[in-house]
Amino acid sequence: MTTTENRPGSTTVTEVIDWSAAPTPSDEAGWLERARAVRRILERDAAARDRAGATPYDEVALLKEAGLVTLLGPVEHGGGGQEWPTAYRVIREVAAGDGSIGQLLGYHLLWFWAARLVGTPEQIEAVEADATRNRWFFGGAVNPRDQDLRIRDDGDEIVYDGRKSFSTGSRVSDVTVLEGVLEGTDTHVFAIVPSAQDGIVFHDDWDNIGQRLTESGSVTITDVRVPWASAAGFVDKVFQPRVYNTLNVPTIQLVFVSFYLGIARGALETGAEYTRTVTRPWLHGGHDRAVDEPYQLDLYGDYQSKLWAAEALADAVAAEGLALHRDAWNVTAQQRGEHEVRVAAVKARATEVALEITGGIFEGLGARATAAGLAFDRFWRNIRTHTLHDPVAYKRREVGARLLRDELPEPTWYS
Amino acid sequence: MTTTENRPGSTTVTEVIDWSAAPTPSDEAGWLERARAVRRILERDAAARDRAGATPYDEVALLKEAGLVTLLGPVEHGGGGQEWPTAYRVIREVAAGDGSIGQLLGYHLLWFWAARLVGTPEQIEAVEADATRNRWFFGGAVNPRDQDLRIRDDGDEIVYDGRKSFSTGSRVSDVTVLEGVLEGTDTHVFAIVPSAQDGIVFHDDWDNIGQRLTESGSVTITDVRVPWASAAGFVDKVFQPRVYNTLNVPTIQLVFVSFYLGIARGALETGAEYTRTVTRPWLHGGHDRAVDEPYQLDLYGDYQSKLWAAEALADAVAAEGLALHRDAWNVTAQQRGEHEVRVAAVKARATEVALEITGGIFEGLGARATAAGLAFDRFWRNIRTHTLHDPVAYKRREVGARLLRDELPEPTWYS
Amino acid sequence: MTTTENRPGSTTVTEVIDWSAAPTPSDEAGWLERARAVRRILERDAAARDRAGATPYDEVALLKEAGLVTLLGPVEHGGGGQEWPTAYRVIREVAAGDGSIGQLLGYHLLWFWAARLVGTPEQIEAVEADATRNRWFFGGAVNPRDQDLRIRDDGDEIVYDGRKSFSTGSRVSDVTVLEGVLEGTDTHVFAIVPSAQDGIVFHDDWDNIGQRLTESGSVTITDVRVPWASAAGFVDKVFQPRVYNTLNVPTIQLVFVSFYLGIARGALETGAEYTRTVTRPWLHGGHDRAVDEPYQLDLYGDYQSKLWAAEALADAVAAEGLALHRDAWNVTAQQRGEHEVRVAAVKARATEVALEITGGIFEGLGARATAAGLAFDRFWRNIRTHTLHDPVAYKRREVGARLLRDELPEPTWYS
Amino acid sequence: MTTTENRPGSTTVTEVIDWSAAPTPSDEAGWLERARAVRRILERDAAARDRAGATPYDEVALLKEAGLVTLLGPVEHGGGGQEWPTAYRVIREVAAGDGSIGQLLGYHLLWFWAARLVGTPEQIEAVEADATRNRWFFGGAVNPRDQDLRIRDDGDEIVYDGRKSFSTGSRVSDVTVLEGVLEGTDTHVFAIVPSAQDGIVFHDDWDNIGQRLTESGSVTITDVRVPWASAAGFVDKVFQPRVYNTLNVPTIQLVFVSFYLGIARGALETGAEYTRTVTRPWLHGGHDRAVDEPYQLDLYGDYQSKLWAAEALADAVAAEGLALHRDAWNVTAQQRGEHEVRVAAVKARATEVALEITGGIFEGLGARATAAGLAFDRFWRNIRTHTLHDPVAYKRREVGARLLRDELPEPTWYS
Repeated sequence: MTTTENRPGSTTVTEVIDWSAAPTPSDEAGWLERARAVRRILERDAAARDRAGATPYDEVALLKEAGLVTLLGPVEHGGGGQEWPTAYRVIREVAAGDGSIGQLLGYHLLWFWAARLVGTPEQIEAVEADATRNRWFFGGAVNPRDQDLRIRDDGDEIVYDGRKSFSTGSRVSDVTVLEGVLEGTDTHVFAIVPSAQDGIVFHDDWDNIGQRLTESGSVTITDVRVPWASAAGFVDKVFQPRVYNTLNVPTIQLVFVSFYLGIARGALETGAEYTRTVTRPWLHGGHDRAVDEPYQLDLYGDYQSKLWAAEALADAVAAEGLALHRDAWNVTAQQRGEHEVRVAAVKARATEVALEITGGIFEGLGARATAAGLAFDRFWRNIRTHTLHDPVAYKRREVGARLLRDELPEPTWYS
Repeated sequence: MTTTENRPGSTTVTEVIDWSAAPTPSDEAGWLERARAVRRILERDAAARDRAGATPYDEVALLKEAGLVTLLGPVEHGGGGQEWPTAYRVIREVAAGDGSIGQLLGYHLLWFWAARLVGTPEQIEAVEADATRNRWFFGGAVNPRDQDLRIRDDGDEIVYDGRKSFSTGSRVSDVTVLEGVLEGTDTHVFAIVPSAQDGIVFHDDWDNIGQRLTESGSVTITDVRVPWASAAGFVDKVFQPRVYNTLNVPTIQLVFVSFYLGIARGALETGAEYTRTVTRPWLHGGHDRAVDEPYQLDLYGDYQSKLWAAEALADAVAAEGLALHRDAWNVTAQQRGEHEVRVAAVKARATEVALEITGGIFEGLGARATAAGLAFDRFWRNIRTHTLHDPVAYKRREVGARLLRDELPEPTWYS
Repeated sequence: MTTTENRPGSTTVTEVIDWSAAPTPSDEAGWLERARAVRRILERDAAARDRAGATPYDEVALLKEAGLVTLLGPVEHGGGGQEWPTAYRVIREVAAGDGSIGQLLGYHLLWFWAARLVGTPEQIEAVEADATRNRWFFGGAVNPRDQDLRIRDDGDEIVYDGRKSFSTGSRVSDVTVLEGVLEGTDTHVFAIVPSAQDGIVFHDDWDNIGQRLTESGSVTITDVRVPWASAAGFVDKVFQPRVYNTLNVPTIQLVFVSFYLGIARGALETGAEYTRTVTRPWLHGGHDRAVDEPYQLDLYGDYQSKLWAAEALADAVAAEGLALHRDAWNVTAQQRGEHEVRVAAVKARATEVALEITGGIFEGLGARATAAGLAFDRFWRNIRTHTLHDPVAYKRREVGARLLRDELPEPTWYS
Repeated sequence: MTTTENRPGSTTVTEVIDWSAAPTPSDEAGWLERARAVRRILERDAAARDRAGATPYDEVALLKEAGLVTLLGPVEHGGGGQEWPTAYRVIREVAAGDGSIGQLLGYHLLWFWAARLVGTPEQIEAVEADATRNRWFFGGAVNPRDQDLRIRDDGDEIVYDGRKSFSTGSRVSDVTVLEGVLEGTDTHVFAIVPSAQDGIVFHDDWDNIGQRLTESGSVTITDVRVPWASAAGFVDKVFQPRVYNTLNVPTIQLVFVSFYLGIARGALETGAEYTRTVTRPWLHGGHDRAVDEPYQLDLYGDYQSKLWAAEALADAVAAEGLALHRDAWNVTAQQRGEHEVRVAAVKARATEVALEITGGIFEGLGARATAAGLAFDRFWRNIRTHTLHDPVAYKRREVGARLLRDELPEPTWYS
């Protein structure tokens, strides 16, 4: 299986670091330092990249080189051997540099790791070894809300046919997670397939106001064959139910939150740098520097405080989730439900705070910062776009129902 | 002097109404009805127009045909004979259809009328007659914050030289208001000149995230000659001070507010239409229609209420301003100051409410509404861009200083 | 029928103005000036009055002396001859001085005027003449949500029996509006009866955190007899349906809004005076006066702007209501519904703004302003108490339903 | 030295637990459980206690019995041996039951522990041993903003004279920390003295709208003698400067935050219980239970999420502070400054969130919850009162200055 590394790049990444010259990080601090280095590279061209909208081959290559793609992979196969709390923070850093790339990394890590949710022990081991050694970048054609990908049972194989409206990571992926429904049943079957094959056509039709580089367009699937042995969690064509898979939604929602917080952090710090170096003090304000104006100090102080609070809640809930992940097979419905409610609260806070910061930061920048070339609106457009993934009103509702009715959310694809 | 009507248009206006077939409106209700008809035409293509970013020749022609360009002109010369409160409401309607065109109309009306602020009685009469009969569309190369346009005294003429960073209306204008500083003095001189002349080069470099069609780019002025007789307010090369001109800032700030409110109205009503007809109810919400979801009703109810309150304040302050305009030569510093404080409050409210609505409306639209082709973000980008014209923090400060220190703002170019 | 004027007063009103020495106002400006004079008297002792919680006999006497009790009464009987928009503004002024007294006046004016909603022409004329000439102060034992007051038909009379949880104005009233349900029917019957009679026992059990002087406690009604001729709107024991009575809820909700806005105004202006004269600048802020601190200017500027916007909307909707009142018999369901939606929006805005100002004003006052003797919290307690009359969430919902579903609220006792 | 335990109590604590029957907790979980038991006792009578306003002798006795007063004391002397993060959480729990008692405990723990900030090693050891063994409850007559307590040097002793406007804990304390200025110098000297002595007269004049039971009134100090050996940090009459004492402000501000968060938690959970059991669904809402109304779920979900975020930030910053406390003598100015900025952010967030929740919770309770006997307003009054301790605007400013100007706050008594 080839990787994206050799494809013609979009050449928007202008700096090359020889990551192999440095020792592989062995702890979270080391990985965060590396993620920050990636962030610095990405943020330099982020405005131009947003405007160009080119397929981010180079950026994905950068993630691979820096070892972030294999962050969750087993150390023995060359992976980082890290757990989710570190991964969330790495996603934040990358998203602070470029929101789309942060999302791509986040979704990738989710799919990389998702074998554990439903795979058999053998599948899990095989996927993690292969994916780590080959530095696969994962995309996913998964959207359980629409049943538009059908599966036929064909002896030793299953065959996917249909289309998906959204397939994040499409052309930059090495492998794609397919999700479809077995004909005549309600059974969803997941499988990992090579992205580069005749039966998969990515339509490159993702054209939205934000997260423009996430390659989230539609895909047509024609007669894509997968051995039954690769159907995640199936043994002799029968699905082995796993309690663990109820951690799916909390985990992916924390992935979302990670790039929201990262994008907000990017807006705040890019904004502060601009205010410090470019923004003029107001003509009639009596101050020589913009950074001495009381409204500036108030604005940035308020936003920083709010962002810190959202980050702290995300960290706390990630730590709670880690305890569940480490004992995943024994997670009770009660524990899962309590965790999901906390995750819903993080989602609500991160959404609100990220919208406020990315929209409001302009007050601190001034009129000239609306020049299109600076693309300061990308932060808001990015947040605005993805935070609509599912209505945040229902997150607050989950939290309220727990408090008022002592009710835990039913596991669905969104709660 | 030619007008823009004959130039090759951007042809984004797809509907033609034969306005001359209808009687000219004689009261506010009639003009508002006409403005709404213009709005309906503009809003049909507003998203496409925003993306194309073409010079809005056709749109300005539409404003002329509909009589809105001459709304404030004397009836005897074919004008509408209306006053500012009606003009503000007309600007709102047009801006609800297209924020950029609303701003162009607003600035035009301001410049059209500005002769009254500083002109001699003869100049006022002549300008209003010519502008009305010829349906001039006004642009303005005015930015008193930068002294980058110099004026030489050359006998019977003055000669402008230099550049302006921003000249709203540039290429769609028939005439441009120039503002510069007389060499060796601090005296600003305003004059109206034909836009189409060799000495004026519009650079077409307005490329900002919002109000994209306002043609607000930079302009180079080379040896543009104006008779002293056309220097606004000068008699024998000496400026005749006018009390009246202190109404400049309150009036233009109410123009700003008008298109902010219009844009917010456009977002709210376009959004409601989309939610009604396109948005899907949430999968797990238990409602068959999006418009039955409690969070939708709450969101739209909250926004509508806030917008109504901001509109009501704008209307009230416009009425207060009208009383001053009607007795403009006798306005006292106290009256002017009280009015300016009220205007500052309107600006603060309109800014906050318009940002909230245009940013938040997406909650009611759902994820698919982030498709770039719908350009639903244009409302927010438009508001975000122009509300930074001068820091809203200083508006609140003006209002606070009045209440706490019994202090009225000094007339400047921004207060 | 005696009036409260001769009863032993609470003597918290410390200033006496001989109102009869001044000419009766003939226009709104005159009445507002008078209302402001009443406000000045009331605000002097408002903190002490709130703490004492005594029955406001003197305060009601003051309202009578100043002519505010008969503000809506016919001029030929000695009334002010004013209409609702003026009454709303008068209520605001009085409430700015003392929120409870503002509410008492507001409810009184509503009951005074309510004859028009359901009375026969003869009843209307008689009530308005009697009430004006005798300066009746109205209370009301009306709460249609609970059917706890029963009516027996007894020949020429009806007889009320039962209790009401809340009877605003109880002991300070001269007359009380009773509302009950005719036995064996769903028919509500209203009648005006003398408050001082054996069959009416006020229990003086109103002890709430706000609006403490409104005498809103429970009342027991025992065999209170009313001639059928006084049953509002009944002719020969049959109710003559009136379209007009659908203006009930919009009118009373605008009364509520009036004292909310007045209380907020009271908090803002009392607060500004305190900040100006008492509050110390912050030790480490570098300013000599509290009123020079940027956060103070921002806070007061923001609150003033928000309050002005809410007031402007209230004024605008009052004017819209006036047009309906003047042609009350011909109001269509559509007109009534549109008006009610606008009223709901005013209620939502006034509630939110008044809560924000009365709660937040302390930021401008500083720690010492929490001394109980200053009772600066009374503004918030007053607003907090009455704004729960009916859930503001349902007001936003009404407004949202109009916009999203083109739906007008059904006339109920709350919409 | 006698303790408060034998004084006639206010008898508002109606439940007695024999704490000595249970084993002393040995870890944080155990102490939190105990704190929650105290909370349950306190919250039962909190409304009545707030209204009575009696001196909380019994409540302080309860804190002693439960071991919370000696939570930070050395285990060998019978103390809990816990550190600040646990103490903060214990304060939160107690404050959730009664805000005043939470503040009393918080201030006590601060003064108990404050010997470490400035005392000599011998003083620290002696104070902690004595205070733990005797279960001293600490009050403090400390307010460095006013220099109204003078100190004379009188041979082996120093003599305090003067007054303090605020002395928290006054009559319920066993010992009081005095702070004064040595005559002829700028040197502040702290010392611990028995509260019950002739030279100390507590004036019992704390009468504020919130935190009513904190015994924070003024105190007159007449000739109170203290051996130089007890002057904190002095050796041979010379102060030994301590780097460590710069942790004073961050620690006390986190104490403040702890009872803010506790009070907010108390409001939220007491409110939820009331909504669940008492609040009626809205007449026209179509729901049978208040807890099914969408606006209720949204309100409680939003508040819970916000409170969780503020709590998470407080926890994170407490953990950061712990690292400093554990290596307190080597804390650098940079470390201290970074920590203080984080603390300022916590203060800002806790203040805003606690005000929002305690004020807004009424929306979920309904009109009848404004009955004075329920005292639901006490949560807001408590928060409102103490959050004005120093202007929160300056906290945001500290945070903003760090981000925009790379500036750390100078250690003062408030930053």
